[in-house]
Amino acid sequence: MRSRSAILERSVQLASRDGMEGLSIGSLADDLGLHKSSVHALFGSKDELQLATLAQAREILLSHVVAPGLASDPGLPRLRRIGDAWCDYLAAEVFLGGCFLCAASAEMDGRPGPLRDAVAAVMGEWIGLLSANIRNAIERGGLRADTDPAAMAFRLNALGMAANWQKQLMDDPSGIENARAAWRKELEMHSARPAPEARVPHGHVA
Amino acid sequence: MRSRSAILERSVQLASRDGMEGLSIGSLADDLGLHKSSVHALFGSKDELQLATLAQAREILLSHVVAPGLASDPGLPRLRRIGDAWCDYLAAEVFLGGCFLCAASAEMDGRPGPLRDAVAAVMGEWIGLLSANIRNAIERGGLRADTDPAAMAFRLNALGMAANWQKQLMDDPSGIENARAAWRKELEMHSARPAPEARVPHGHVA
Repeated sequence: MRSRSAILERSVQLASRDGMEGLSIGSLADDLGLHKSSVHALFGSKDELQLATLAQAREILLSHVVAPGLASDPGLPRLRRIGDAWCDYLAAEVFLGGCFLCAASAEMDGRPGPLRDAVAAVMGEWIGLLSANIRNAIERGGLRADTDPAAMAFRLNALGMAANWQKQLMDDPSGIENARAAWRKELEMHSARPAPEARVPHGHVA
Repeated sequence: MRSRSAILERSVQLASRDGMEGLSIGSLADDLGLHKSSVHALFGSKDELQLATLAQAREILLSHVVAPGLASDPGLPRLRRIGDAWCDYLAAEVFLGGCFLCAASAEMDGRPGPLRDAVAAVMGEWIGLLSANIRNAIERGGLRADTDPAAMAFRLNALGMAANWQKQLMDDPSGIENARAAWRKELEMHSARPAPEARVPHGHVA
């Protein structure tokens, strides 16, 4: 019998493509060539399977997007690295159906219940992580003191979400590099020590 | 018997909340207290109903977001107005489940077929409209000549999508005003005649 983690490895892929509601113990067992009872013994119910799948997707996101950031210096370098790692993660097609959390967010937002709450909690954690790193960059003198952490976290998050949308619906990966460039530009524009090209908008003669 | 348009008025609301796949002739008839056969006579199949619902959602978006823009002067004023109108539309909760097209994009992106193609066509039209207005603003001297229309359209679209996400999943409407401010700032930063506060980043002493 395959282990729980091997089953979850497949369930995150299927759920990213077909949605969290599309996930079922029966279809997952079919897909893996397992008896339904084996999968049932490990997860008990569809609700459990969905929550375990979300937890697995969170781990994958942490390892692809957050861990590379933690390997960089805190403050501005870490914030820059998180943006690059997010874009790399989108370009690498880690999930069959694009960013798992982007898809789960849109799917669950109108379905009250524990699964929706769990998706919102993971997304809250992500936005909180961006905000905390922005505050940290301000405290360390990397970003200007008048930077609004919540508003900047909103703008940074928007870029990755839109890149995922453009790739998944429009079959157009160009949004990923637009997002990467805009993420860097956003940090430059609010940098306490702007790079020369960010200091004065291009085309302005002082 | 209620008219086709009255049925569609309800189906766009239900689909925005429960998804395009959640839509069915039977459930729509139940919701409206109609005989299933009456709804069936008007739409024939679930596929037809879904496509007609999407077309109705497109009309609603045109009237709420695009039409106010067309009432403004072409170029930069029109582009600014479209952003305000999009934010107003999100704040007004025009659809039960938030922005119809944002939800439909995420739902359909992994489901090949005519409905997915139709959703992508409407979104392509929207991005095309933003790009065309950006090009127009460049030609009229409102935006700098080195502005990349596709990249700017990507960034502007990202703001509204993220505002919708934050409102729908996080029950937090603050993203709408973040999006409005960032949309205006984006236009200011690329303006050929920047406002004094946009000319030099705050905190920079020339």
